[in-house]
Amino acid sequence: MGRRNEILKRATEVFERQGVTQTSLEDIARAVGIKREAIYYYFKGRHDILLEILLPQSQALLSGLHDIQQSEASARDKLHSAVEHHLLSYNPRYLEMSIALREDHFFGRDGRLGEIQLIWRDYGKLWTRLIEDGQRSGEFRGDLNAKLVSYGVLGMCNWLSRWFSPDGPLTIEQIIDTYFKLTVEGLAAR
Amino acid sequence: MGRRNEILKRATEVFERQGVTQTSLEDIARAVGIKREAIYYYFKGRHDILLEILLPQSQALLSGLHDIQQSEASARDKLHSAVEHHLLSYNPRYLEMSIALREDHFFGRDGRLGEIQLIWRDYGKLWTRLIEDGQRSGEFRGDLNAKLVSYGVLGMCNWLSRWFSPDGPLTIEQIIDTYFKLTVEGLAAR
Repeated sequence: MGRRNEILKRATEVFERQGVTQTSLEDIARAVGIKREAIYYYFKGRHDILLEILLPQSQALLSGLHDIQQSEASARDKLHSAVEHHLLSYNPRYLEMSIALREDHFFGRDGRLGEIQLIWRDYGKLWTRLIEDGQRSGEFRGDLNAKLVSYGVLGMCNWLSRWFSPDGPLTIEQIIDTYFKLTVEGLAAR
Repeated sequence: MGRRNEILKRATEVFERQGVTQTSLEDIARAVGIKREAIYYYFKGRHDILLEILLPQSQALLSGLHDIQQSEASARDKLHSAVEHHLLSYNPRYLEMSIALREDHFFGRDGRLGEIQLIWRDYGKLWTRLIEDGQRSGEFRGDLNAKLVSYGVLGMCNWLSRWFSPDGPLTIEQIIDTYFKLTVEGLAAR
């Protein structure tokens, strides 16, 4: 592993452990076992490292949803794939960082992090379109605001970053199944 | 307004604006217009202030849900009241702080903040019991894990702290109505 990749790997670990706002470049350098100054050969700073960790992941999330959206599946099946895609591809710990990123006081300091915000905005729009398409085709009820529904489902999924533990009794597969059924079929007994 | 209350009020504003992890006692003192040392007359530190802001609010949230749970209403009506209670009593901005609190690296530094974590744990348990009761009475389907459902609904609601703006086009009343219908009836057309 090259020095550059090692910095990215160690930085990810430190960000996960301490949270982004409480991680200094010094912390990252210590984890790699190099001097703080040596990092500047590869990265402009902490936010530059963070960007390089989050950007490819966010792009993959968006392009995966594009593929789902363009398939010939029913709206119901697309929704299942979208929930599955989101929960499987997003390491809940990484998500905490994305969440931190979305706080405006964080963004205000570095314009480049705005690239990720744009991807997330497009991702949210694509989710909303998926719901709208299902409403237009008559598969989904038309009386609920599609944007609100998509934010609701994303919120449900993203909240995992606050409680989910890979060592706990609930598996990701079970969560995907439950959240899909809850969203599409509802909790009321038939 | 006494000096003590003024410190709490200004601290809330600064926490909202900058986020908890990026707010120093110095920042709070500056907002009040006093010296940092003067704060120690009233509070032990930043976490002590934070506790005093969040504790009463968290307690009110829990006791309100207790009242709902003990009423004679149907499970469906209780769920509606619970969603409404949660979204109306929780100023989305305050919520950001609660979220910050729930990050373990934050908790580890000050045991007293654990009091809030305990309240939130009880609150989550009460939500789960509300779902379980509805499953036992036959109003709610029994094949979904009640804890997962309650975390899902809470996640849906708590996600508001990341996107909701009181100046935006969507009202809290509309959100309560949509999230309740989505949870109970589901998205599929009948």
